[in-house]
Amino acid sequence: MNRDEALLHVKPHLTEKRFEHTIRVADTALSLAEKYGVSKEQAELAAIFHDYAKYRPVAELRRWVESSYLPKDLLQYHHELWHGPVGSMLIELEYGIHDQDVKSAIYYHTTGRKDMSPLELVLFVADYIEPGRQFPGLDEVRQMAKLDLVKSAWMISRNTINFLMSKNQPIYPDTFYAYNDLTNKVYGGF
Amino acid sequence: MNRDEALLHVKPHLTEKRFEHTIRVADTALSLAEKYGVSKEQAELAAIFHDYAKYRPVAELRRWVESSYLPKDLLQYHHELWHGPVGSMLIELEYGIHDQDVKSAIYYHTTGRKDMSPLELVLFVADYIEPGRQFPGLDEVRQMAKLDLVKSAWMISRNTINFLMSKNQPIYPDTFYAYNDLTNKVYGGF
Repeated sequence: MNRDEALLHVKPHLTEKRFEHTIRVADTALSLAEKYGVSKEQAELAAIFHDYAKYRPVAELRRWVESSYLPKDLLQYHHELWHGPVGSMLIELEYGIHDQDVKSAIYYHTTGRKDMSPLELVLFVADYIEPGRQFPGLDEVRQMAKLDLVKSAWMISRNTINFLMSKNQPIYPDTFYAYNDLTNKVYGGF
Repeated sequence: MNRDEALLHVKPHLTEKRFEHTIRVADTALSLAEKYGVSKEQAELAAIFHDYAKYRPVAELRRWVESSYLPKDLLQYHHELWHGPVGSMLIELEYGIHDQDVKSAIYYHTTGRKDMSPLELVLFVADYIEPGRQFPGLDEVRQMAKLDLVKSAWMISRNTINFLMSKNQPIYPDTFYAYNDLTNKVYGGF
């Protein structure tokens, strides 16, 4: 599926702002993919579809989690975490996208996980640093993404945990496993 | 085993400063136990023995983890996390203390865990707030411990994760399971 075709598929499922975000994530992911030797085709496809399920009604997302192979513990966490896993499933169901690495990049783009693939890292970082975003600490991550993809992902997982704790929110286990794994990769183990 | 007998047992295993800390933790644990309806005998015993294994050489702690029922993933984390689990095992081996709740309070006093018992909470909080300690944010926890044991434990788990992340350290899974569980208990789930 080429870029224009993919964009045509996702557009009706997103708000105008989210569609513009998606294009910026795709461009950022392409640039990171080129820099870090990841397939540009996979990076672009994963980026274009990463928020595909974001505007499904919460009740529908819940039904997909309940009725599928997706882990049920997702339902004990904020529904913001559901659109990645559901989206990764729907693009296979609805568009026949069977590429497991593309599906995983979409699945884990919000939480990260232990042992992320290079493609997963590219989407995880691109979604966070795309040029339309602005919040404290982001410039540091943008600078790092030019030098070290893994360390920029580590910063994102750390910032995400800090943000959730500042809001008194629980943290999905994969987010923690990502932080620990990336900490070991960046700073070494004991 | 009464207080004086227990103190005689632990004294040779601790530095002078650590022994004084232990007495302050025991007094704090007694006071929390009385306030929150926990057995004072168990609280005092757990507090007196909580750092029993802290000054064993790291190589000895490692051997105990390797050669026992203790989970091997401890060895992938800082050795500061080993003395609780090893101590909980040694007090049974060496003094015949079979009380599982006392043993668990010692086991988890550094990390916490999901579904901590009232006794586990008492030691977890007492060790953090004992009057000899002073660092930023501690007074807030001390005040909360007078009002709500669970919420004070939640603050400790949050502070611990923040501290470890500020040092670029990995976080033992039980620490974050404690945070998530306590967050749900204090702030409710979704």
